[in-house]
Amino acid sequence: MSDAQPSPNAALLGQPGSRQRLQTPALVLDLDALEANLATMAAWAEGNGLALRPHAKSHKSPDIARRQLAAGAAGVCCASLREAEVMAAAGIPGLLITTALAPDKAARVAALAAGGADLACTVDHPELLAAYGAAAEAAGTRLKVVVDLDVGLGRTGTPSADDAVTLARQAAAHDSLAYCGVQAYMGHLQHIAQVADRDELLAEPTDKVEAMVEALREANLAPGTVTGGGTGTHRLDAARGALNEMQCGSYVFMDVDYDAVAQPDGARPYTNALFVQTSVVNVNHPGYAVTDAGLKSFATDGPLPVIARGAPDGASYRYMGDEHGAVVFAGQDERLALGDRVECVVPHCDPNVNLFDHYHVIRGDALVEIWPVAARGNP
Amino acid sequence: MSDAQPSPNAALLGQPGSRQRLQTPALVLDLDALEANLATMAAWAEGNGLALRPHAKSHKSPDIARRQLAAGAAGVCCASLREAEVMAAAGIPGLLITTALAPDKAARVAALAAGGADLACTVDHPELLAAYGAAAEAAGTRLKVVVDLDVGLGRTGTPSADDAVTLARQAAAHDSLAYCGVQAYMGHLQHIAQVADRDELLAEPTDKVEAMVEALREANLAPGTVTGGGTGTHRLDAARGALNEMQCGSYVFMDVDYDAVAQPDGARPYTNALFVQTSVVNVNHPGYAVTDAGLKSFATDGPLPVIARGAPDGASYRYMGDEHGAVVFAGQDERLALGDRVECVVPHCDPNVNLFDHYHVIRGDALVEIWPVAARGNP
Repeated sequence: MSDAQPSPNAALLGQPGSRQRLQTPALVLDLDALEANLATMAAWAEGNGLALRPHAKSHKSPDIARRQLAAGAAGVCCASLREAEVMAAAGIPGLLITTALAPDKAARVAALAAGGADLACTVDHPELLAAYGAAAEAAGTRLKVVVDLDVGLGRTGTPSADDAVTLARQAAAHDSLAYCGVQAYMGHLQHIAQVADRDELLAEPTDKVEAMVEALREANLAPGTVTGGGTGTHRLDAARGALNEMQCGSYVFMDVDYDAVAQPDGARPYTNALFVQTSVVNVNHPGYAVTDAGLKSFATDGPLPVIARGAPDGASYRYMGDEHGAVVFAGQDERLALGDRVECVVPHCDPNVNLFDHYHVIRGDALVEIWPVAARGNP
Repeated sequence: MSDAQPSPNAALLGQPGSRQRLQTPALVLDLDALEANLATMAAWAEGNGLALRPHAKSHKSPDIARRQLAAGAAGVCCASLREAEVMAAAGIPGLLITTALAPDKAARVAALAAGGADLACTVDHPELLAAYGAAAEAAGTRLKVVVDLDVGLGRTGTPSADDAVTLARQAAAHDSLAYCGVQAYMGHLQHIAQVADRDELLAEPTDKVEAMVEALREANLAPGTVTGGGTGTHRLDAARGALNEMQCGSYVFMDVDYDAVAQPDGARPYTNALFVQTSVVNVNHPGYAVTDAGLKSFATDGPLPVIARGAPDGASYRYMGDEHGAVVFAGQDERLALGDRVECVVPHCDPNVNLFDHYHVIRGDALVEIWPVAARGNP
């Protein structure tokens, strides 16, 4: 596991004010904000009669998965086999591997099930289904199977209702497989900024889900579970009613990407819980201070980090290489001192978490726990 | 250490053809190419009468550092304290921490030296120098100090000759510090594509180095070591003659970024040694195949990955999320099969290595060793 390398901040646990004294760059998780996000989503799902299987790809942490289960989740989704292996080893039930894997990984998946893990895998091609069936048979186990529907993302899944019916029929007929539902993830719509635009774009893929589910029903293969949705669309998905299980992930932390995505009625139900803390290491230039968090500490696929605390109002953040960033001041006479701490909202939580080995869990101004990012890495 | 989580590919070690059967996404290191790059740089440095202290930030691997030392390197540079701690634990001598650290890390640095590590740190501010001096004194050790000169990068270092003299004088006068040279890294010039442009831009910072070294000499603080340079400028730096030690890092692997940087006389002395291997996981779409390597497997701060093998000529690579990429075909009827392996040159080697826990070391078509990326991660 990734916690084999201890955090150099362990000696600070429990000390008042330790939030401002972390060895940096450090991933900081605000426990009050996390708990509020978990409670809000759990109450929303329950209030709407929807199952919730949050996506562990956002946090890669059995510690957070346990809290999601305690709040009523049906299990957690996993985006990679490694995530599923780590969650299974930690005893997390209700695992769903949400993506097609290379067929030669089927033996590792079957080994998880044979070892007692409660998990389902997704299929979108007869070859992959055959590989899972053969691996499950060889391992003397039975694998739960979800048929993945491609309703517009163009990534994994099958775009054809006929193929979905064929896959479901093959899964239902296989002695070592158990057909248990369908998945339809509309990842391409999660980050549409405006609610009305996002809702309009949801119409067509939702119709496709409904048509494919109807085709399955007519073939006597009505899915028990219709799983999908994300932090961007979940409230709109609920109103449309095609899904009965939600896979939202990023709501636990939020990030700069999702801060730009409006929720219906102007609500801001989720709050920033995840930050990178960095220290000032050079003050030799007017106009900016150099910090110790750069390309190695932030996911660089999206927007820039946004400063949350520790810098003068109006300051912005930019990268200065693998190990360095800059706090660029808005005012000419502003400055920071060597060693000052600055915290930034992460740009895109899932790949940002993957860069770190530990969550430094904060309550108020104190470091109260250190959790491993146990499921980071490949393959 | 990061090797606490074993690679799922360990069972393939030594098997012919195992290169094509790795569980993916996997970082693949071609040992023939690595050895050729190490030998070429070592011979070049020796032939030019220059010391070579290659930058371990590119590989984060004691296994590669040992090979650099065996080829004649004076030691290795480290970009972070964590890199220095891992290299020291592996017994690598001649460590130089090339960047200013937050002053409250001085105790960890002093602990390394007190524990027997052979290392030097860089300073660019009196407060940092004082912190190192106090920490070394408290730990009962003596820390080697290099004064970092900012000759145009604007990141760390001191831009003023007077300040450089002051820092060198303070270091030389401190009982627990040993002044041993200066550093001048021109990171902003490494990736200028054309040789003539790069060489022209080198003139001014090289003049600054020479002027600052002259100021130190006049103050009876002539630096023994003048260290700097990189894969992009080293041959031009040698011709200009201001540096006597080279810090090149990326030459061990090369990457898409550096493939675009011409070397003098049109030479291509270094060859691509580092790849990400990915598997095809979805073939349900005409025109492209979906793979299992996305934002979590490639550094996204620079250009896109370039396909090196396993796909039809002319195919290109694009990202489809954290866990997915696409091989986009140039021809309409081209395709790949589920499970096919594709290898891509990494876009930017340093942060790309940081995403993985293991090098899968290849000789020809066989996996021959697995090396941990022992110094990845933070802080």
